[in-house]
Amino acid sequence: MDIASLEKLAHLIAGQRIGALGTLREGAPFVSMIAFAPSRDFSRFYIHASRLAYHTQDFLKDPRVGLLITESDRSAVDPQTLARITVRGSIAAVSEGDAEYATARELYLKRFPDSAMTFGLGDFALYSIRPESGRFVAGFGQTFTCTVEDFKRASVHTLPE
Amino acid sequence: MDIASLEKLAHLIAGQRIGALGTLREGAPFVSMIAFAPSRDFSRFYIHASRLAYHTQDFLKDPRVGLLITESDRSAVDPQTLARITVRGSIAAVSEGDAEYATARELYLKRFPDSAMTFGLGDFALYSIRPESGRFVAGFGQTFTCTVEDFKRASVHTLPE
Repeated sequence: MDIASLEKLAHLIAGQRIGALGTLREGAPFVSMIAFAPSRDFSRFYIHASRLAYHTQDFLKDPRVGLLITESDRSAVDPQTLARITVRGSIAAVSEGDAEYATARELYLKRFPDSAMTFGLGDFALYSIRPESGRFVAGFGQTFTCTVEDFKRASVHTLPE
Repeated sequence: MDIASLEKLAHLIAGQRIGALGTLREGAPFVSMIAFAPSRDFSRFYIHASRLAYHTQDFLKDPRVGLLITESDRSAVDPQTLARITVRGSIAAVSEGDAEYATARELYLKRFPDSAMTFGLGDFALYSIRPESGRFVAGFGQTFTCTVEDFKRASVHTLPE
């Protein structure tokens, strides 16, 4: 991927707060909205979810997930030109004993301070989406297949907050 | 569902142009962006897709799909309060000979005039997502399980354009 595309990917991942999570429900695709916080190197996408949520029930049974992050739609543009990344990977719980727990919690709460209260609830937990591959559409006709290394390369191009 | 929630659902479906389509790829969830046009009664969601697209390859093998439509994110709000609808259903091609073809094409092109050129391309076709059930989150803690009849009821509450 060229530098301009890596910058676009970094802007997309760092700039969006919500994504569409795909899980398996009775063997069929189920898509729900999630709020996410990426790790600094974009090799993880953290979510904080209740065990009662449909998607949590789904991925606790089968950890294979899809994640779509899409540039915000603007009515002036052809939606086919919107940047978006489709991530394929798996999801796993981040337990309080895990090395990454404190950082993950910090990154998540920095993005979603309103979620602090849910960290006190017993049915909520942090989960980490681990990308295995991605398909990045930077714009019309500009499509890239990505590895987790490409995500890491893109993370270098994040603008300082 | 109460009238206020039906109005919210109508606003969501009529107001958004893009959604996240969940398909099965090698048995795992795959989520990609699609531009959609709902039928007048919200019992169908039309997309125009290339046979070369990953999602088309997927749903031509297994027609079970998920569709998520989410209210536009605004940084001032807690994303958990955003309205969204998760649709579960199946997808089928709408052929030129089908009774609904002319209307579907018209609805789609009214929303996406830039797509007119792709209607001339051999690998593109119209497809119809047929909702079987839905899960509507109208806001924090306001969740409804919907049938296709609820979609139809909601469509009555669409504001005139």
